[in-house]
Amino acid sequence: MSSERGDDAVYKPIGYVESAFDEPVAPDVLLAAASRIVLDPALMEGLVGVLPGQRLMVIFHFHRSSGYELLQHPRGDDSRPRRGVFALRSPRRPNPIGVTVVDVLAVEGNVLRVRGLDALNGTPVLDLKPA
Amino acid sequence: MSSERGDDAVYKPIGYVESAFDEPVAPDVLLAAASRIVLDPALMEGLVGVLPGQRLMVIFHFHRSSGYELLQHPRGDDSRPRRGVFALRSPRRPNPIGVTVVDVLAVEGNVLRVRGLDALNGTPVLDLKPA
Repeated sequence: MSSERGDDAVYKPIGYVESAFDEPVAPDVLLAAASRIVLDPALMEGLVGVLPGQRLMVIFHFHRSSGYELLQHPRGDDSRPRRGVFALRSPRRPNPIGVTVVDVLAVEGNVLRVRGLDALNGTPVLDLKPA
Repeated sequence: MSSERGDDAVYKPIGYVESAFDEPVAPDVLLAAASRIVLDPALMEGLVGVLPGQRLMVIFHFHRSSGYELLQHPRGDDSRPRRGVFALRSPRRPNPIGVTVVDVLAVEGNVLRVRGLDALNGTPVLDLKPA
């Protein structure tokens, strides 16, 4: 699915997140909620061996993020000294890639039910790997 | 640095791997070796707070990978039953993204010396995050 344009890496989403959250909320609220990853049905066979009870690494695109600063306050808290973006998990980064390890609750065809995915509704998913 | 083309995620490398290995070798050999991540000097400030002795997540593009199958033998071992690509860490995946946690040995300007990075010389690096 991928291609390259010059030196750029170009990725086509393998699926999308479906969650109750269309807008940013507190991280702990997002992490506690169950959500769904709906894969492109053409890729369903790629889930063989992904089992409920396992941990899974989800790599996704922070599609709502735009722009970044190289130095940022951790969690946007002005009282904490600024740090480099590569020492932070902020979504505002040169390449807005998110990586989160989730708990697999169920695998239903091309749909994964998971818990612990801090990604908004509609987030493009780029890859899944064993955690 | 990122942009989108239709639904695609387009990422410009933040830097490149420099290692002794231009060609694939056994994973344990690659993992044991020290290598360097040379960041775009314009992004150097993003390393503030990345310290020797820490673990760091490196997200990179498997630039030598082409094509994939949805079902693959683990580690290419035909004696093991095939599994879905999302249950494997094979570089041959729909979006050839690699994620490895490395040990930071030193931070020297825009250059990170690391151990445990299973990426070949010249690999484009897309992101770095706290592990």
